[in-house]
Amino acid sequence: MKISELSDRSGVAVASIKFYLREGLLPAGALSSPTQASYDESHVRRLRLVRALIDVGDLSVAATRTVLAAIDDTSLPIDWAFGIAQQAISTSITTTDAAAEPSVGAALLDTVLTQRGWRISDDNPGRAMAERVLDTYERLGLGHLVSTLPAYVRAAEIVAEADLAAVAQSTERADMVETVVVGTVLGDALFAGVRRVAQERASDIAFPSPEGEC
Amino acid sequence: MKISELSDRSGVAVASIKFYLREGLLPAGALSSPTQASYDESHVRRLRLVRALIDVGDLSVAATRTVLAAIDDTSLPIDWAFGIAQQAISTSITTTDAAAEPSVGAALLDTVLTQRGWRISDDNPGRAMAERVLDTYERLGLGHLVSTLPAYVRAAEIVAEADLAAVAQSTERADMVETVVVGTVLGDALFAGVRRVAQERASDIAFPSPEGEC
Repeated sequence: MKISELSDRSGVAVASIKFYLREGLLPAGALSSPTQASYDESHVRRLRLVRALIDVGDLSVAATRTVLAAIDDTSLPIDWAFGIAQQAISTSITTTDAAAEPSVGAALLDTVLTQRGWRISDDNPGRAMAERVLDTYERLGLGHLVSTLPAYVRAAEIVAEADLAAVAQSTERADMVETVVVGTVLGDALFAGVRRVAQERASDIAFPSPEGEC
Repeated sequence: MKISELSDRSGVAVASIKFYLREGLLPAGALSSPTQASYDESHVRRLRLVRALIDVGDLSVAATRTVLAAIDDTSLPIDWAFGIAQQAISTSITTTDAAAEPSVGAALLDTVLTQRGWRISDDNPGRAMAERVLDTYERLGLGHLVSTLPAYVRAAEIVAEADLAAVAQSTERADMVETVVVGTVLGDALFAGVRRVAQERASDIAFPSPEGEC
């Protein structure tokens, strides 16, 4: 199909498609004449994925390129795909102010992980994110928010098990890796969404409206 | 104290403090002379909060202003503070492409919430976030990722209960509202962090390394 049809099929503007081609997020089409390229179903599918990662997952172009490369690298072990997807979506959050001083948050997180018997690598990008939030709670004098950590870890265990179970439903390697990447990137937004729903319910229970009020 | 001391105490550059004053994120100091303002402990504390919301919570200046106003409005019912914090951190995610067509994701979410007996308002900002991700899973042909939703909802319930329990540990209204706002904003990052940690563990169990390898 021509680029105009690819645009119609995917709902992505021609100018955006050209941008993604230039940025290496979309493979070039086959040349059907010296001035015209032809695209196929794989381009429609890849375009949808690119838009999902950028629009819904809020990834940068560079991070999108990294996770697409992971999907396309058929020699990559499946379990590495988690790490690559995690790194790609975590860099924007764990910025450069990693403190050299020993962190209260790091000690708190280690205590909870040790209690659960988890052995987690030091360079897991989630560590720095969690430690930074815990440090901030302490610095703000809101240490009681630290007491939520064990519940967050228990909840994360439930989510991670569901993530892995979804991956296991795929039989082909390409499907598995795409599931890992998309689920890791978009799962943050899904959880953030249902957390707001669950907060409304928990708040309704804790602070019930007077009768007659809606 | 002078602005230079406020800068030393808070670790925030003088130029940034002046920016926050101009943007209404920090109340003006008391004038100690026609050209010099004096700041106190409340400014140190507020500055730390502003930095936490902007740097760790990734809020915009406008969203920060909204949640600070919620903290400062002593007539605001506590349970409304959740809604205001949620709206402030959700607008950047739920952008304008809310589809007019009936959404697959909306039906899926409704089914799960009905099963749990939850009655959630239609304008809860988490609804749109979750529906958008579910729609994207379907559109990408990764419908098996939708099967993670009940686990995400269960996990969110655990997190929301811990959030409310932390709020209940405060006795003063100002503390409670600050706990709600900071916990809502930074809790997303805390969960995203521990989710990555839990994924590493779940992946280690699902794909164990061959013996002898690290």
